[in-house]
Amino acid sequence: MQNDRLKKQLTFLMEIDKMKNVLRQTVLTDKSRQETDAEHSWHFAMMAMLLYEYADTDKVDLNRVIRMSLVHDLIEIYAGDTFAYDIEGNKNKEEREKKAADRLFSMLPSDQGDDIRALWEEFDDMKTQDAIYAAAIDRLQPFIINYITEGHTWKHGVTYDQVYERMYVIKSASPSLWQVVTELLDKSVELGYLKK
Amino acid sequence: MQNDRLKKQLTFLMEIDKMKNVLRQTVLTDKSRQETDAEHSWHFAMMAMLLYEYADTDKVDLNRVIRMSLVHDLIEIYAGDTFAYDIEGNKNKEEREKKAADRLFSMLPSDQGDDIRALWEEFDDMKTQDAIYAAAIDRLQPFIINYITEGHTWKHGVTYDQVYERMYVIKSASPSLWQVVTELLDKSVELGYLKK
Repeated sequence: MQNDRLKKQLTFLMEIDKMKNVLRQTVLTDKSRQETDAEHSWHFAMMAMLLYEYADTDKVDLNRVIRMSLVHDLIEIYAGDTFAYDIEGNKNKEEREKKAADRLFSMLPSDQGDDIRALWEEFDDMKTQDAIYAAAIDRLQPFIINYITEGHTWKHGVTYDQVYERMYVIKSASPSLWQVVTELLDKSVELGYLKK
Repeated sequence: MQNDRLKKQLTFLMEIDKMKNVLRQTVLTDKSRQETDAEHSWHFAMMAMLLYEYADTDKVDLNRVIRMSLVHDLIEIYAGDTFAYDIEGNKNKEEREKKAADRLFSMLPSDQGDDIRALWEEFDDMKTQDAIYAAAIDRLQPFIINYITEGHTWKHGVTYDQVYERMYVIKSASPSLWQVVTELLDKSVELGYLKK
């Protein structure tokens, strides 16, 4: 291939096939297996698209959020998925993810590598309106699956307070979605999926 | 949940979790297993995003193409994945997919169901510039994986002419990507992955 730029892009695009091998704690709704990062990213994008009307649509750019959803977990190819409620694993998460980003995004032509890295960093910082809505959906996706699967990943010692705290960003992103979360949180306690 | 609209949307969003159970003929690049429709849709979106510069960017709206990539295989939840080179399976594909679309998209509030169905039909018709670029990437994704995996899904009696014909839409979508395809097609014959 003569075009060095295109060669880099295709090499990167085949490297990220590894997103299909990164397993998350969340299972499929039929509980048959854990979902992969690639599957989660797609599901996140679909939810961001179909629930957009509940965000502050004057301030949130859905097209940017969808792009964030596609790239937000890429660094886990090298850094691995860190379970949200794993206190030890989250201690060195930032350092591991930074190293992974250096390695992964440098495979791309620098303009594209910089763009995707910036999008991932914006998501991770959770400060812009786009990133707040993205974070809300990224958390809502496993939350609802957990509820449907009778608290599948909560069973390993996760408490109501921990889930409440992790979901709290949904409150500022979308009052309507937050209402769903609080309803399902209460029901989860009632049904014994979560302990208060 | 009081909001009937939101309830419908969440029910639909959990129903499409089944995209993680629809297996394609294409395997992962490490050949460990077949990829799922959800994974393919994500990979397609990433490729559409990073290879966009090779499309006719004055005419192709990348944001629409990304949305197409996310929804283009949804109907396979009920219709199943039909292998591109399966002559028998493709005979009643249209009818099966239409039925699946009726069933699936009617789960959503009608405005959203209509929007997604229109996007899927546009993709399927392959007439607009957005749909032509989307079709090109939808075909390029398994093509390159097939090349990397030494013609994994071509081994079951697929010929050079069949692959050439299926990839041909890439020519009008992007001369640069078409050049890659023809190079890899020739190499595939040379290496014995495909028979002329």
